[in-house]
Amino acid sequence: MLVYDYSNLIEENIGKEGLPSNFLETNKELLQEIDNEIKAKRQDGSFGFMELPFHQPELNEIKKIASDAHGKWENIIVLGIGGSSLGAMAIHQALHHHFYNLLNAEKRNGYPKVFFMDNIDPELVQGILEVIDIKHTLFLVISKSGKTAETLSHFLFFLEKVRKEGNPIKQIIILTDPEKGPLREIADNEGFRAFSIPPNVGGRYSVLSAVGLVPAALLGIDIDALLAGARAMAKRCETIENPAYLFALIQFLFLQKGKNIHVMFPYAQALLGMTDWWRQLWAESLGKEGKGPTPVKALGVTDQHSQLQLYMDGPRDKIITFITVKDYRNEVFIPHCFKDFPDLAYLGGHPFNALIQAEQLATEAALTKASCPNSKIVLDNIDAFTLGEFIYCLELATVSCGLLLEINPINQPGVELGKRYARALMGEPNFQEEKKEIETLKCIHAKV
Amino acid sequence: MLVYDYSNLIEENIGKEGLPSNFLETNKELLQEIDNEIKAKRQDGSFGFMELPFHQPELNEIKKIASDAHGKWENIIVLGIGGSSLGAMAIHQALHHHFYNLLNAEKRNGYPKVFFMDNIDPELVQGILEVIDIKHTLFLVISKSGKTAETLSHFLFFLEKVRKEGNPIKQIIILTDPEKGPLREIADNEGFRAFSIPPNVGGRYSVLSAVGLVPAALLGIDIDALLAGARAMAKRCETIENPAYLFALIQFLFLQKGKNIHVMFPYAQALLGMTDWWRQLWAESLGKEGKGPTPVKALGVTDQHSQLQLYMDGPRDKIITFITVKDYRNEVFIPHCFKDFPDLAYLGGHPFNALIQAEQLATEAALTKASCPNSKIVLDNIDAFTLGEFIYCLELATVSCGLLLEINPINQPGVELGKRYARALMGEPNFQEEKKEIETLKCIHAKV
Repeated sequence: MLVYDYSNLIEENIGKEGLPSNFLETNKELLQEIDNEIKAKRQDGSFGFMELPFHQPELNEIKKIASDAHGKWENIIVLGIGGSSLGAMAIHQALHHHFYNLLNAEKRNGYPKVFFMDNIDPELVQGILEVIDIKHTLFLVISKSGKTAETLSHFLFFLEKVRKEGNPIKQIIILTDPEKGPLREIADNEGFRAFSIPPNVGGRYSVLSAVGLVPAALLGIDIDALLAGARAMAKRCETIENPAYLFALIQFLFLQKGKNIHVMFPYAQALLGMTDWWRQLWAESLGKEGKGPTPVKALGVTDQHSQLQLYMDGPRDKIITFITVKDYRNEVFIPHCFKDFPDLAYLGGHPFNALIQAEQLATEAALTKASCPNSKIVLDNIDAFTLGEFIYCLELATVSCGLLLEINPINQPGVELGKRYARALMGEPNFQEEKKEIETLKCIHAKV
Repeated sequence: MLVYDYSNLIEENIGKEGLPSNFLETNKELLQEIDNEIKAKRQDGSFGFMELPFHQPELNEIKKIASDAHGKWENIIVLGIGGSSLGAMAIHQALHHHFYNLLNAEKRNGYPKVFFMDNIDPELVQGILEVIDIKHTLFLVISKSGKTAETLSHFLFFLEKVRKEGNPIKQIIILTDPEKGPLREIADNEGFRAFSIPPNVGGRYSVLSAVGLVPAALLGIDIDALLAGARAMAKRCETIENPAYLFALIQFLFLQKGKNIHVMFPYAQALLGMTDWWRQLWAESLGKEGKGPTPVKALGVTDQHSQLQLYMDGPRDKIITFITVKDYRNEVFIPHCFKDFPDLAYLGGHPFNALIQAEQLATEAALTKASCPNSKIVLDNIDAFTLGEFIYCLELATVSCGLLLEINPINQPGVELGKRYARALMGEPNFQEEKKEIETLKCIHAKV
């Protein structure tokens, strides 16, 4: 069961930078208000992501397409960006071998290699052609609006290849709005298989919809366990004192104290993708109306040798959340050797497991001693169930923090202008006004 | 030639958030002082990294070991963490195929696959054994002090394997202090080949020493061009108005204005590793004495769909530096199709190159319009020469910014406590005091 340990955010442990130990009592009414608001927004359908663990009309189709595909494909390529790729990428990284694409098909249990095309860099596009065979590749095209420029340009590019070398009907699967948008229309016209993204679930909250479940199932991940984990967390969050609300309240209170940088610091290589997923969730949901913390990802122990100096001795503008794992999926021992060298001798005979956990506790203790607010999310292990808990917890925490900040956590008005400017710069005739505007922006030029 | 374009940091372009257009004049004296200090520190040997482009006593040995190894190894594994891996990893990512390890030996021109073991997660350690054959693998063990726990534990682990299955004398190369430390002593005793890390060059400034050059050369990278690029930048930095000093001054001035978050935002997948390298350089050099900006990496265009909302509409606590590339190494076209759909039609016929560049310019324009300070480092292309320029520029910028902040940019006192605590937790008898201290830190426990 996921535990949120916030001991080292309390004054008794970290001194005046911390919260008074009665902070929960003094904020209970506030949490109650947030809880009421969340329940109302769940009721009126605004927070559609809250229904996903309970209601999956296409679950059987997802399982069927996955079982039909098993053993048939060398590669899956996910064409999607932002919320259309980060969730599935995170689940894949968390649950699969660290060098998954280098394993042979047998070690992959017959599941395909997977590539997430989440950038339009021409070198990346060219690069992938050199390591896959188009006709043995399944393409998932994911865009809720069906209008995302990056995903559509990839779609056009790979569709042309598949038409030449393969069979589009078999190789292309569309995930988009159930009714609207160009991708839905194209899927209907061309006869592509398609799954629906619920209209009331925004991209960054969509990992437990078809957006995350279809790629996960195609890669052999237990999507029932993922959803069961999310349901278990939803159940825990029926009471006010739950990890999601507490995480949200605490980040909010520290933001009010001027700590505008929120660091997520997992001590597990497998969870790095999860921090990328959280980074979008947190930034895009909370960064608006001049408010919003900046999410930062760090990786234990690696970033002890990169960012820890700053966290220890830099300004007190951060709050750090470790993610720890009690049981790693392997136990690997460091052998004894060079016993005359004290710097090597103490390592021998211990498992790497003990070393990484000692370093996490040491870092936590050092930060606490230095009065740097830190807390931790403790996972028993990394599996589909605990990921489900984790995902739902942080999604709920995000909307809760948004309500505490009095902003709308499910829109993203700030990205529209850049999209319009890009279309103007691509020469679209309907965007002449924007083109003019861009030209007037740069009054002076200064460079060296 | 690398260009630093800071137009969108000036009041005329972004309004009151910006710098007055005469900021350079008013700070000329300050820059002159910094320049004098840097020259003195170069002279007295404190800034050893400044000599690396000019003075490489082991260059011929490095080239020889690389040419002897060519075609002989399936894999290289770099055992190193922080400054001992980030530089070589960044150069490799920047100059090689995005899916390098998936290419066959012929497409790799006979050079080996490469793995950077920069974490001690047991799953990662176990994982790598499943994708390499120990006896066809060359190991680089990199630690300046020769005492780094993570690197030494990997060393012990892989040495045992190589002793069983291969030949340590052939397969292990040590990079460490020329005289001191356990790794140097072990190399001497065991007869391992070894290269030297100059004692006056700290880990995060060491990429142009053997630390970066040995792995780069073994992977077929033109290290002469890398050093030539660094020399070209060093030459430019002989005058005060150079990109390094200006970058430093500008970041410093915005930090004084409360912008504590420095975002590096390359529009090239290949440069993502370079931002990780910079992130260590910036954080570990500048984060001390209660001062220091927090470096944040973002990737164009991917993070437009994750972080841009926050940058556009969030608090004005950031300064953004784009990295742009004029010529990508491939030109790949988006085909025409579905001409009746305006959201697809405008894309067809353009190269991805145009789309990524349009999106960068659009994002820049949108941020400028929103008064978010931004600038850009413009590279003609990505090759060993331009990387050399870039690396030297940012190293010099880092120490310059450190001097402006009146801190010591080449030490890292804040990481020592955590290291001692970790040794205590690993049961070392000499660290009893630390063990007691850790136990007293947690006065109260609070979790949910």
